[in-house]
Amino acid sequence: MVSESDFRLEEEDVRELAEGEVLLRALYLSVDPYMRGRMSDRKSYADPVGIGDVMTGEIVTKVEQSKNAAFQPGEIVASRLGWQEYAISDGKGLRRIDPSSASISTALHVLGMPGATAYFGLLDVCQVKEGDTVVVSGAAGAVGSVVGQIAKLKGCRAIGIAGSDEKVKWITEELGFDAGINYKTTENMYKELAKHCPEGINCYFDNVGGSVTDAVFPLLALNSHVAVCGQISVYNASKAEMGPRLLWNVIPSRATIKGFLVFDYYDQFSMAMKDLTEWVVSGKIKYHENVVEGIENAPKAFIGLFHGENTGKQLVKISD
Amino acid sequence: MVSESDFRLEEEDVRELAEGEVLLRALYLSVDPYMRGRMSDRKSYADPVGIGDVMTGEIVTKVEQSKNAAFQPGEIVASRLGWQEYAISDGKGLRRIDPSSASISTALHVLGMPGATAYFGLLDVCQVKEGDTVVVSGAAGAVGSVVGQIAKLKGCRAIGIAGSDEKVKWITEELGFDAGINYKTTENMYKELAKHCPEGINCYFDNVGGSVTDAVFPLLALNSHVAVCGQISVYNASKAEMGPRLLWNVIPSRATIKGFLVFDYYDQFSMAMKDLTEWVVSGKIKYHENVVEGIENAPKAFIGLFHGENTGKQLVKISD
Repeated sequence: MVSESDFRLEEEDVRELAEGEVLLRALYLSVDPYMRGRMSDRKSYADPVGIGDVMTGEIVTKVEQSKNAAFQPGEIVASRLGWQEYAISDGKGLRRIDPSSASISTALHVLGMPGATAYFGLLDVCQVKEGDTVVVSGAAGAVGSVVGQIAKLKGCRAIGIAGSDEKVKWITEELGFDAGINYKTTENMYKELAKHCPEGINCYFDNVGGSVTDAVFPLLALNSHVAVCGQISVYNASKAEMGPRLLWNVIPSRATIKGFLVFDYYDQFSMAMKDLTEWVVSGKIKYHENVVEGIENAPKAFIGLFHGENTGKQLVKISD
Repeated sequence: MVSESDFRLEEEDVRELAEGEVLLRALYLSVDPYMRGRMSDRKSYADPVGIGDVMTGEIVTKVEQSKNAAFQPGEIVASRLGWQEYAISDGKGLRRIDPSSASISTALHVLGMPGATAYFGLLDVCQVKEGDTVVVSGAAGAVGSVVGQIAKLKGCRAIGIAGSDEKVKWITEELGFDAGINYKTTENMYKELAKHCPEGINCYFDNVGGSVTDAVFPLLALNSHVAVCGQISVYNASKAEMGPRLLWNVIPSRATIKGFLVFDYYDQFSMAMKDLTEWVVSGKIKYHENVVEGIENAPKAFIGLFHGENTGKQLVKISD
């Protein structure tokens, strides 16, 4: 399990800008479960963060100074420049944010990477269609909460699995999920899911893995789809967690299981942002933010993700 | 574990044929792992065999008498009429076999259901392409042995996993697999597979599941495919077998796992038979048969499948 002692806060002076560079002042930084993978020294889809390097992650920033004609002081941009109060960029990989359409912090969740993850995972990987029963784990998280709401917009039934009664209440009463299940207090998850999914599960959007997923697999409907987005229950495991063997379930159901990364959809990102922005602005997709203040609290906020402390998106506010 | 005492041999007189019916005399009957599923009283893709019913399965028969104009005495037909020495049919579901193209017993394996399973699983579910590294478990079985040979015909590397040195020798020296691994004597399956698959595994055709599959998953290559055809290692389990959780592997690899049944490809069956017949007749696909004689030995031959006693196809010869 990652701990606060794995992080160190270092201060250094901001250097002079070279031609073409911009100085960015951080407003919000994002903590996301995937970052745990970057802290392990093993082969994955991206290189790990080196010991002593700036922790990776998305930030929303304001342009403070610019020697790059493409960016003017005062503009808001999102980037992947990591956990720092000030960052210098050559302008590459900066995404301009329109503060007039929605709160700029949404660029780190519903109108950013987590929102796009929900969008492509549900619509492309899961291939949902009207009338489908959609189950999502981590349903009160930044990704899961959007998955269920898009499912509803597409005419599906949405069942969310989350880790507290408060979260279940939020996704059902505020977000419009058809049902929610608190896996921490439910004795027999399989039976509870079966009750809510009498015709089986057509789409399972998995953020969690582990025993939650064990309960879902025997309920997969014919030609169902499983989008494996995350497996937060095993990210901190130093050796393989054991569980019941699940693979035989896909034979009678002919289920398709697919792992995916939102980065694979980079070319289609603007399509997702257009739809998501419309849905957020019109109030069809709602969100909730947990905000802690100060970069010194980022590690604690990050670790909280693995204890299910956040309802909605966990953010760290760095400056006004 | 299924045992011989789960079966009973019953004799009764053959009744008179009604109009439209044919009397078939069994020549060969097939034992296949999937039949274990039909013996469990649980929901699956097909109804279970009832207590006292004729055991399900494919048979090759000769038409003895016919009151159906479509079939003449002496013709050879394959059907799914189960383990019996004589069967009566109304002609539906009978597949005419041409004894001049290949041995009629092949209608129960390479030119029958197991061959079609290999064909569609590899070419459609796994979407193999030239240069792919294909790993197949149960590689010396009726399905697996055909999978590896089709893979070679399509320009892939074929690595087979089997349960004896004799089987490994057969698939590599006779069938042309690039490598074979005896999982029963290999201490570290992961390392052994990694040695043979330096660029990862593009296609895994899984007949077995269990610890063999555990070793494959961490080696799945980017955008790889897993065809889940069978899970023979768990068919006799009365409760869920435990194993390391595997699902996280599909995220960095973006692997697609799909369960399938050959019956889903019924409409395309003749295409598979045309290709397979050509390959068998030209000697491009080879096969091996284990034959026991007498219907009284069918249960023992069937049970032997779960102990890996067969190299190639296990058949029961009923009459000449």
